This record gives sequence, structure tokens and C-alpha cells, in this order.
Amino acid sequence: MFVYLDHTATTPTSPEVLQAMTPYFGEIFGNPSSVYSFSKKSREAISKARQQVANALNANSDEIYFTGSGTEADNWALKGTLEKGKIAGKNHIITTAIEHHAILHTCEYLKKVEGAEVTYLPVDSEGFVSVDDVRKAITDKTALVSVMFANNEVGTIEPVAEIGALCREMKIPFHTDAVQAAAHLKIDVKAMNIDMLSMSAHKMYGPKGVGALYMRKGLRPENFVHGGAQEHGRRASTENIAGIVGFGAAMEILQTRLADDAAINSARRDRLIAGILERIPHAKLNGATGNHRLPNNINFSFIGVEGETLLLDLDAKGISASTGSACSSESLDPSHVLLALGLKHEMAHGSLRFTIGRLTDDSQIDYVLDVLPEIVARRRAMSPLWEDYMKSQEGK
Amino acid sequence: MFVYLDHTATTPTSPEVLQAMTPYFGEIFGNPSSVYSFSKKSREAISKARQQVANALNANSDEIYFTGSGTEADNWALKGTLEKGKIAGKNHIITTAIEHHAILHTCEYLKKVEGAEVTYLPVDSEGFVSVDDVRKAITDKTALVSVMFANNEVGTIEPVAEIGALCREMKIPFHTDAVQAAAHLKIDVKAMNIDMLSMSAHKMYGPKGVGALYMRKGLRPENFVHGGAQEHGRRASTENIAGIVGFGAAMEILQTRLADDAAINSARRDRLIAGILERIPHAKLNGATGNHRLPNNINFSFIGVEGETLLLDLDAKGISASTGSACSSESLDPSHVLLALGLKHEMAHGSLRFTIGRLTDDSQIDYVLDVLPEIVARRRAMSPLWEDYMKSQEGK
Repeated sequence: MFVYLDHTATTPTSPEVLQAMTPYFGEIFGNPSSVYSFSKKSREAISKARQQVANALNANSDEIYFTGSGTEADNWALKGTLEKGKIAGKNHIITTAIEHHAILHTCEYLKKVEGAEVTYLPVDSEGFVSVDDVRKAITDKTALVSVMFANNEVGTIEPVAEIGALCREMKIPFHTDAVQAAAHLKIDVKAMNIDMLSMSAHKMYGPKGVGALYMRKGLRPENFVHGGAQEHGRRASTENIAGIVGFGAAMEILQTRLADDAAINSARRDRLIAGILERIPHAKLNGATGNHRLPNNINFSFIGVEGETLLLDLDAKGISASTGSACSSESLDPSHVLLALGLKHEMAHGSLRFTIGRLTDDSQIDYVLDVLPEIVARRRAMSPLWEDYMKSQEGK
Repeated sequence: MFVYLDHTATTPTSPEVLQAMTPYFGEIFGNPSSVYSFSKKSREAISKARQQVANALNANSDEIYFTGSGTEADNWALKGTLEKGKIAGKNHIITTAIEHHAILHTCEYLKKVEGAEVTYLPVDSEGFVSVDDVRKAITDKTALVSVMFANNEVGTIEPVAEIGALCREMKIPFHTDAVQAAAHLKIDVKAMNIDMLSMSAHKMYGPKGVGALYMRKGLRPENFVHGGAQEHGRRASTENIAGIVGFGAAMEILQTRLADDAAINSARRDRLIAGILERIPHAKLNGATGNHRLPNNINFSFIGVEGETLLLDLDAKGISASTGSACSSESLDPSHVLLALGLKHEMAHGSLRFTIGRLTDDSQIDYVLDVLPEIVARRRAMSPLWEDYMKSQEGK
């Protein structure tokens, strides 16, 4: 049995997307920068993909820049903006404590090497950033506000449009890491006043190795990858044509099913959440509820049980899940996101994330609800932490 | 008729490579950073590819770091080394005047933004850097020497092993951009004392969108793409598994045919060069001869004719060629490489590059030798520059 419940870590490239990509490996392979007519097909393919991505965001196609990953897009937005900002004496970045490491580690680098000042805004117990906190953090040194669209671990959807409106009013560039959100939510960069937005194809049934940065026309952060004149002179490297075509196709297909998928996913999500709460005592749902949560995200902490242990037990039952971010799964530190939500270390260690998607069906939800309670109970029976916890509850 | 003579701009992904890649799009798609057993196959695939690339270079597999492109590898080597160097007061880079823009524009950036000092070594009329010039340029501020393995426009192969030996003796890190060379030459990073080396898959019948940086064990330039802990914590972004698998496969296949390909290519190269010299008067071969030239490179200047014009005429005959670097073909500036070789502006504007490869056969060489003399003659007949040139020759 193969029950893949880690769609937020990555998704399979869909057959339609792979089919769209295939001619661009061995047949239409010309370097888009070349002048002969054979390369025109490569240029046209990239233009089409750029338009497909732009359409999905209500952007113009010349505001879409393809990159090698969502992480690269994040690096570019932050480093490039700070580089330009420094010239005007602006070296302050406002971000949040629950960003992906692509943002947090880039901020740490900018602090260490470029002398940047970084404000990490706190979040409430459901993971929400306060727009008022953003406003208060802004100084005349602020070069950029970067707040993620939706959190990858707990699925909380941030008040991006409100932050966008505030930043536009304050004339401060606003970047959002939408690597997760773009796979599930309708995004309108114009209506939401977003200046820069990072995306990744492999989170939305496109290929790995290709991302994009939306940059509103007129914004000119310093380039990140220097070299040739590709991407209108703003991102050097021979274009990953097949990958870019795949990204465009994936994004276009996604738009046609966004609402339906969200309805199906959120119904399954809510059934899994309700089932866990019903069948497992002292289970804590992490993150927000209802419309403020990504439709595919389920994140729980089970006091007394290590998340990693649960993953191995679930894996033995054929279920692929996660404790949170795949990018940091080799680390033994508790999740920085859950700590920022106010969870104690032992609870942050005990988290388990299921993220549903196109490979999910109803029987898999039933299967998880069948096996998970037993797994948690068995692990708790061996756990001194659980014993202590139960004793502490008795007195209450 | 489709005569593709621009293998240095890019190559088609070979059918065997695409076949090796295909399962990693929709089937074996697990995020390598995940802990469940499904992802083990992804990790194993990447490990295998890393070993394949390492084997080809006589490197250890933990010295190979996959990137999104050769350009990214170049950016990383230079920026990362300078970042670390600055801490020790070393802000000087030695490179050459004929590097790819991935190196030159990165150096310009480092000069402008990071206050780096850059020495651009001259080359002789065939494009060779002098090892003695490298030695003389080294100061106690030198953080890095970066000299390309072989030039992409004229094919000159630099004395990399000698420069490597010198740098090792002087204890200065030595980087080489081998994006072109790795597709044609046997490289031994240990024997050649290379500390860092950039490569790209799409130059060797692998996919676009994946490159690699070899870094000798112990070297720790600052990371370039910050975020998750991928690539042993040194290059963040979810791994482009299919692309990486394709790179490994392409590199392994290449090694099995490197000597045969070089023999076939250089025979065709020499026949095309001899044929052009014989049939077109006042044709100037740019670059070096024999073993010091990439086996697939032919680069000529035809006084009195714009290279761009020739490209369009050749395209009308079904021949895809280049004036030099595809990455800068949108620019109207004459080639910086040819200027560095001492060519006058009008000659540097008149260059034409053919690069042969797996899509080339003998009949195509005949075909070019058939049509090119006529094209050049026709264009020269319309050229005031040619008229002036012929007059100037009369007096001699």
C-alpha cells in the first residue's frame, strides 16, 4: 500500500505536464538566445509558459522571471532588494518567525555578511502575523517586507492583501513566498498589492528544478545570478526550456481545477482532522481552522510522542507523512514554526503533518484514521513523558 | 535540411539520458529530504548521479554539488570564495579577459558591490593565457584564480594543469569554468590540482537547468543559495532529481565515447577549417590549432562581412551557427574574446562559429563548404568595407 500524504514536500509531475515537456529535451532543444530560426520555437515555448504563469497571477508576462527553484526566487528577492536598498541607506528587512528556511537563512546571511537588520515578527497561536505589527516595525531604513502567503508546516494563510495594501501605502516593497500558496489559492498580485512573489513548479505537479519570481514592473532589485543576458538580462543561465514549459503547463492546468481541488481537499482535510480529534485523546491541532488554513494541510501534535517515531511507524504501514518541512527534516531541532506558535519543545517535537492532494482518495483517509490511533497509543504506552503528562492531568 | 552546427550553444538531451530521467518525474518523485522509505529511491538516484559525475573527474562524490546551471556554479565559486576571503582581507580575483560572461559579469558585480579588485589577464593572439602572467598577478590579497578550461568562442584550451600546479604551490584556490571543456576533454581534478570546477549538463547531451560545482574537500566558500539543508547543507533548493539523474547519465555515457568523439570531431573540424581556408580568400581562423583547440570548434573571421549577416544567410540554407557566445547574441557589441585576441573591431564583428557534435555527419561538412564561399562572396560584393580592404591590399 502506498499512501502519499506529503504533497506539500513535493508532488509528482503530472502526465499531461510531462507530455508537454517531452519535446523540449531532444527535439526542440535550440538555445533560445541563438539567432537562427530553429531557436525561435524555444523562445516561443518560453514566452507561452511565461504568459501561462502570468495569467494565473493576474500579472503581465514581462513581470515573470524563471529561476532554478522557489528558494532561488526567495534569495533573489531578499538579497537583490537589500543590495539596492543599501545604496539608499535602507538595510532593514521585516519578516516573520515562521518563514521557510529559504527566507530565514537568507536573512541570517544578510545579517552576518551584509550588516542587515532583520525584524522577525511574532505570530499568534494559530500562526497569524498581525498587520499592525508589520506597520509598527516599519522604519525609514526598511528596504523590504517579506511575509509568506501561507505557512508550509501548519497551513496558516496570512493576511497578505492587507499587508500588501499597507506596504503600498508606505511605499515599501512587499515580497511574499507563495511556494505553497500558489498550489492551492487564487492569487491576484495586482489586487493584493504584491510587489514580488516566489513560486515553485514541483509543488503544483510540475517538475523539480524550476521556480519563478514575479516582480512588479519598475522594481529593479540587483540581479542574483550574473552572466548572460537571459530573462531580459535579469537572470543568467541557459533557460531550462523543458522545465519552464512544464511550469507553465502545470500552472495553467492548476487554474482550471483550483476551486474543485480546494473543495475536495478541504472536505478530506476536515474529515481527517475531525477523525483524529475524535479518536486520539489529547491531540492538538496546530495552525488555523477553516478558510484561513491551506485546504490540504493537517498538522497535529501528540503529547508524549516524537514526530519522527510516528513517521517511521506510519512508513511501516505504507503511509508517507512529515513532521513539517522536508527541507530541514535532517535536523533534530524542534520546528521553529511550532515554537513560534507557542508550543512547548516536547509538543513541537511531537508534530505530524499530513498534506493531501491529487494522489489522495477517501479510502486513504479512512486508512489513516484506522492505523494512527493505535500507533499513537502504542508509543504513548512506552513514553515516560506521556506518563508524566497524564499524572499532571489527574490533579486538574 | 537541418544542419545543426551550434553544439557549443547547447546539445539535445540524448534519448538514453531522457530515458534514464523519465521515471523521476511522475513515479520516483519523493522529496529526497523526507524520512519515509519512498524517498530513499530519490536519494539513491542522486547519490548514483553524484558518483557518475565524480568518476568522470577523478573526484570524490562528496566533492560534487549540483546547481541549477553552470552559470550558478560560476557565481557560487567566485562570490562564495570572495565572501570568505574578505574576512581574511583577501579581495583580489585573478581571471582572464576571455572568460564567459558568467565569470566576467560576476567579477563586475563583485567590483561594484563588494569592492573586489579584479585582474583580467590578457591572452595571446591564439587565446592562450600565460602561466607566468598568472604568477606575476598573485598578491597577498589574492583570494582566487579563475581561468576557464577551454574558451567557448574560439576553443582554445588553456594550460590548466600548469596554472593548477602554480596555485597549489602558492596556496591560492584555483577555479576553472569547464562548462565547454568537460563535454570534450578528459579532466582529472586531482592530477590537475583543480580546487573548483564548473560544469553544465546541457553541453553534453544532458538536460538544461542543471549544473555542478566540484569543490575539493576542505574548501568552504560561503553558500550562494541559502535555505534548506540540501547538498550537504551547501546548496538549498529541493533537488532537481530528474535533471541530476540526467546529468549523471550524460556524464557517464560521455566518458565511454570521449576519445572516439574527439577523434571524429577533430577530423571533421580540420576538414572544415582546411576547406574554408582553401575556398574563401582572406579567411582568418580565430584561436589555436591542433591539440590546443577543442575538437569541435571552428571560428573564422571574414573581413568585410558582418557575422550576424552570415548567420541569417546560413539559416536560410538550413544551417544553424553562431557568431560566438549564445548568451550574449542579443548584444551588438563585438566579441570580447576576439578583441582580446587582438582582432580589430571589424574583424571581431565578422566572426562565425561552427561547433560540431553528435548531430554532425560528413555530408553536412560538405554542404557548408558548398554554400559558405558563395554566401561570403555575395556579401563581400555588397560591402564597402571589403572594397576598402581590397584596395589597401593592392598597394602591398
